Amino acid sequence: MLYVKNVNEVQELIKEHFKGYSPESRIVALTDSFGRVTSQDIFSKEDIPGFDRSTVDGYAVISEDTFGSSETVPSQLRLLREIQIGVDVDFEVQSGYAAYIPTGGKLPRNADSVVMIEYTENIDDGFVYINRPVSPGNNIIFTGDDCKKCDLLIKSNTIIGAKEIGALAAAGYDYVNVKDKLKVGIISTGDEVVNIDFPITPAKIRDVNSYLLYASVLESGVEPKLYGIVPDNFEKIRSVTDLALNENDIVLVSGGSSVGNMDQTAKVIESFGEPGILVHGIAMKPGKPTIVAKVKDKALIGMPGHPVSAFFVFKMIVSHLICVLYDVQPQLAKTVKATITVNYPSNTGREEYLPVKLSKKNEGYEAEPVFTKSGLITTLTGATGFVKIDRRSEGIKSGSEVEVILF
Amino acid sequence: MLYVKNVNEVQELIKEHFKGYSPESRIVALTDSFGRVTSQDIFSKEDIPGFDRSTVDGYAVISEDTFGSSETVPSQLRLLREIQIGVDVDFEVQSGYAAYIPTGGKLPRNADSVVMIEYTENIDDGFVYINRPVSPGNNIIFTGDDCKKCDLLIKSNTIIGAKEIGALAAAGYDYVNVKDKLKVGIISTGDEVVNIDFPITPAKIRDVNSYLLYASVLESGVEPKLYGIVPDNFEKIRSVTDLALNENDIVLVSGGSSVGNMDQTAKVIESFGEPGILVHGIAMKPGKPTIVAKVKDKALIGMPGHPVSAFFVFKMIVSHLICVLYDVQPQLAKTVKATITVNYPSNTGREEYLPVKLSKKNEGYEAEPVFTKSGLITTLTGATGFVKIDRRSEGIKSGSEVEVILF
Repeated sequence: MLYVKNVNEVQELIKEHFKGYSPESRIVALTDSFGRVTSQDIFSKEDIPGFDRSTVDGYAVISEDTFGSSETVPSQLRLLREIQIGVDVDFEVQSGYAAYIPTGGKLPRNADSVVMIEYTENIDDGFVYINRPVSPGNNIIFTGDDCKKCDLLIKSNTIIGAKEIGALAAAGYDYVNVKDKLKVGIISTGDEVVNIDFPITPAKIRDVNSYLLYASVLESGVEPKLYGIVPDNFEKIRSVTDLALNENDIVLVSGGSSVGNMDQTAKVIESFGEPGILVHGIAMKPGKPTIVAKVKDKALIGMPGHPVSAFFVFKMIVSHLICVLYDVQPQLAKTVKATITVNYPSNTGREEYLPVKLSKKNEGYEAEPVFTKSGLITTLTGATGFVKIDRRSEGIKSGSEVEVILF
Repeated sequence: MLYVKNVNEVQELIKEHFKGYSPESRIVALTDSFGRVTSQDIFSKEDIPGFDRSTVDGYAVISEDTFGSSETVPSQLRLLREIQIGVDVDFEVQSGYAAYIPTGGKLPRNADSVVMIEYTENIDDGFVYINRPVSPGNNIIFTGDDCKKCDLLIKSNTIIGAKEIGALAAAGYDYVNVKDKLKVGIISTGDEVVNIDFPITPAKIRDVNSYLLYASVLESGVEPKLYGIVPDNFEKIRSVTDLALNENDIVLVSGGSSVGNMDQTAKVIESFGEPGILVHGIAMKPGKPTIVAKVKDKALIGMPGHPVSAFFVFKMIVSHLICVLYDVQPQLAKTVKATITVNYPSNTGREEYLPVKLSKKNEGYEAEPVFTKSGLITTLTGATGFVKIDRRSEGIKSGSEVEVILF
């Protein structure tokens, strides 16, 4: 097995071969941009806010006029027109004057601060009485305090989440430049595999991987396309793979159960020429019989037929590949600490992923391994996450603390 | 402020008032079920797998025939027809016989185990030579080992993820019963608020919350609907709110900047009658000026106008509400431990959310607070997550370990 590599090596190799891959760019409405990746730096088109705003309900004043004021000796300021929210202010405040201003109201010219209403008294005699001094700038957000015109608002290669959409709205972006969604083609192979809407017959198993991978692709925010089940026939697999490579950025070819399936996939890949297979076999458990290839400048992953293996290969390898093709940072693994409930020996020389079920225990969590005999898929639904066991480790001792990576 | 409650109290109150809320159920294709919530227990319609399968490439045998075999004294078994993957097997293995079987192949009748090919020799003389004994059941997955017919496959009120879709596919479910997606109506109010596709004029600010909340709703896997910007007018707010309540399960009414906006929303809520406002003011920072109400049997949340506040109110209150209405467990908060880089005093008596930016530091992470003057939205885009500061805490000391909740 010339090509067997460990998970980190495979991730590095993917970076090396697919760095600089760049999906096309397109313009989408802000409401359609959630989860997309920015294709260029985005700069603010305007100052945010566009005017000096009050952050409180109170009185716009010249701060000097309030110096030395107190409850016993308040400053007396003559009232100007009330400022209304959302309405432009066309007057200025001169020394000895003040104007009522609501939160968010536009500061009149010449005023440099706002006194909170709590520190004032208004007895309807045409004056306001200020009980407490303010300094210049108090209770004001100045023009451009949030973001100045031409400031970098969002960097290129950023995944657009709720807060990014908020920032884009604040800057008046109703459309955004984003990268085309990566497309992922999914092919199932194997003479023994039948689709979920067919009656099952003896010796056949259902196509689990197409749907498992379809959902995993959706979860990653990219676009899946199913190519159905292809029998174990070189020409047939090759022609569907060719089509899928033309139509997608990534093609996942899921092997059936047998070694023969995977061999067929390997032959098909080699038939497309260089560079072809980059990795054949990854030192992970489950997930060893995996192929990573570059074919027609696209990424092709030969996925293990075993659904639980395919699930982990997606998490560890395909997710990483998606980040590389988008040129975004992988998200931090989301983890919780827990105490493992049993001894779990491991000495396979491969990085091992042990599914566990978490339950609350006193202040913390307990992680109970979910033993999936030969990694059967339905048992996996009971797991909350998994523990990664280093390939050099000899396993985990009952009672020790582990880091559980949440699904 | 009669109704001010802390975050836990508000979450409990929401449970109390909205427990038993049940969205309609509908049937969707398996490929459309990702992220939906199951509306009933789902049982397996068939045994998985549906037949005894080999987990290796090898020879199907009667284990007794291999007892005592070794490399020096192999058992000699006469070869039967090869078993092909995906093809039903109509013969039986009798004592003294063996049949080649690929991984995933159907075990012939009477055979009780499979010898891995590595422990056999085949010199094309019509026999296979077995070098190592096997026990009954070796290298076989039996019918129903993964899941038996009528076993509970997925519980009601489960969020359907990739592994659930895998399990449903394995059991031959091409359609699934799920709850209708919760619908969330979003209304912005405020005379000073203008839409993102309008030129901004003095004293106006852009409608950030509609888009921020739209994205947050999408992120939660439910369905947003925008009702646009409504001026500060009782009748207008009431009629749009009424419409939104009829069309949605949850209505978010985002106040503008001023106290006046929120007062208007409160009046509108009261006009719909009992039970009306449940909470007015939450002991959280940011996010204090929040209303939780039950109107026309729907949930109405009066969101603060301030985008950063609205962002955190969504995270702490609206997300929780969505889980309650769906009757699903809230997902575990996804956290990482980090060392905080500065002192951060806090003595507001409210639970405080401090946005931080994480960076790798030696083995761990450093969390640097992102100071958003008055919580301006664009600065929030630089944050990776936030630290929750208990309302009884006096703040965080520089160098101490904090738990960062990832966005």
